[in-house]
Amino acid sequence: MLEAVNEVKETKMRVVIDWSATRLEAALIDGTDAVLDRIGTDDGLKRAAGRHEAVLDEILAPWRRTHGSLHILAAGMVGGRSGWMEMGYVPAPASLADIARAARHVALANGDRLTLIPGLCDPAASPFPDVMRGEEAQLVGHGLDRDAVVVMPGNNGKWARIGGGRIAGFRTFVTGELVALLLAYSGLAGIAVHPEGRDWRAFARGLECAGAPDRHGLLTRLFTARTGWLAGQLAPAEIGDYLRGLLIGWEFIEARNAGLWLPGGTLDIVGDDDRVDDYRRAAEGLGLTARVAPDDTALRGALAIGAESMILA
Amino acid sequence: MLEAVNEVKETKMRVVIDWSATRLEAALIDGTDAVLDRIGTDDGLKRAAGRHEAVLDEILAPWRRTHGSLHILAAGMVGGRSGWMEMGYVPAPASLADIARAARHVALANGDRLTLIPGLCDPAASPFPDVMRGEEAQLVGHGLDRDAVVVMPGNNGKWARIGGGRIAGFRTFVTGELVALLLAYSGLAGIAVHPEGRDWRAFARGLECAGAPDRHGLLTRLFTARTGWLAGQLAPAEIGDYLRGLLIGWEFIEARNAGLWLPGGTLDIVGDDDRVDDYRRAAEGLGLTARVAPDDTALRGALAIGAESMILA
Repeated sequence: MLEAVNEVKETKMRVVIDWSATRLEAALIDGTDAVLDRIGTDDGLKRAAGRHEAVLDEILAPWRRTHGSLHILAAGMVGGRSGWMEMGYVPAPASLADIARAARHVALANGDRLTLIPGLCDPAASPFPDVMRGEEAQLVGHGLDRDAVVVMPGNNGKWARIGGGRIAGFRTFVTGELVALLLAYSGLAGIAVHPEGRDWRAFARGLECAGAPDRHGLLTRLFTARTGWLAGQLAPAEIGDYLRGLLIGWEFIEARNAGLWLPGGTLDIVGDDDRVDDYRRAAEGLGLTARVAPDDTALRGALAIGAESMILA
Repeated sequence: MLEAVNEVKETKMRVVIDWSATRLEAALIDGTDAVLDRIGTDDGLKRAAGRHEAVLDEILAPWRRTHGSLHILAAGMVGGRSGWMEMGYVPAPASLADIARAARHVALANGDRLTLIPGLCDPAASPFPDVMRGEEAQLVGHGLDRDAVVVMPGNNGKWARIGGGRIAGFRTFVTGELVALLLAYSGLAGIAVHPEGRDWRAFARGLECAGAPDRHGLLTRLFTARTGWLAGQLAPAEIGDYLRGLLIGWEFIEARNAGLWLPGGTLDIVGDDDRVDDYRRAAEGLGLTARVAPDDTALRGALAIGAESMILA
């Protein structure tokens, strides 16, 4: 068992891929866990449909020529229903070993080894189990050894509880997708103007509207992005960040109502795009201490799950 | 003063128009308030931009040839910022006389008279005044003599309180627009299949999810349309009506939290499309007595506001 692991460690460089619908990002990792090189292409899962193995073979060819056969680690969409090979969901609470045990190892024709990381589900969600794909690698990369509440911003972002060395449970919030839909296709689409930079004052006004102690809910508050413009109090260039502040602020209100945080507490924020800063500002505005994780947590998590799965294999 | 009114009543047939971004609907009304004829065209406000008067002149020409010059009554979008002539907002609480006094009378070149009905605003809404355009005619047509809570389903639907002979206040809910956006452009767009008829069982399941007494909010519950499908418990043909039930049910929850209804109470529903039945089912499912108004309330209201504005003119 240990020999097999050592053999892999010695003979194969590891590649962590992030294969989304529209992009394929790959990182080449050496034996000391350092990133040696990166490749990014527009060969997303959609474009590669029906020929995933050939696309991956070709894109990683330069690394393979230099370093020999590769051990490819993949979490997320690639294992979803519209990905390459559908992976199941490990039920929370789940430890690193639980996730690693459910990983799937595939020997590719070119000699590479592919390890697909499973998704996670939370059977306690009602009326249907909640699901994540990819965020489990973020959580493992962030660390399961310390109890915490972790928010992972995204189109379908997640709030997860870490406790007792396991991912205890999580819930999805569709905030990111709603912001994008409203700005692209709603009645606001013809009004909002998108400035080059961010307008943090407008963002703060949106946060403030979300947190205002009146009795109205999100379906009513969302209309304020329009009434503010009609009243001449929100300029077209302010609408986008006002809406981001409003929806992210409302996500925090919903998360608080669900018992995920209390004022004065600490929130860990894990992600790799601009939204991390949005969530940090929202958290701090609401009296939370925000701890922002390094943006390579997903990669570190995939490596950890891959290594553990080899030990358990 | 009264002579002027009589003159108009005797010499002009009235036309109530509903001019939206994409459609122009007109109804010809005789002296007994009966609808004599109807015309509908695709000459919406967008297409008619810059030549509204000419378009109206041409579309109503057959009626004008038969009946002489017309008195045209128009509420709603035509008086909005992207309409023909921008009308202001009468602040709630507002009586029929308050609305009629703010109407604008325009003599058109062809001898027709145009009466534009103002919108309504609710300055008590925070942080910006809420607004309606067109629904004020629905409310007047429904009647201001009896205290009531009235819901008017729509893309930006309204809940209004009638009290003391006035429209006391109202709030907007963006429910209809969200349903449309989610089904057309979200991650559900590639999954949902739209059946020919309605699936009331799926609608009821959505209502049930909205009303379930857990601590989670809308941003989390919306994801259940996807997790239900992933779990094999929501078929693609059920997603649309599940989502309608979920969002309309959630609108009712928010309206209840805002103090707009109590179980065992009565709700008046005013509208002219399929959504009226959706709201009736939601109301009855939640223990409300639903009173559905005739679908010509907007027309009746425009006539009443027009008549009152002539008296006050």
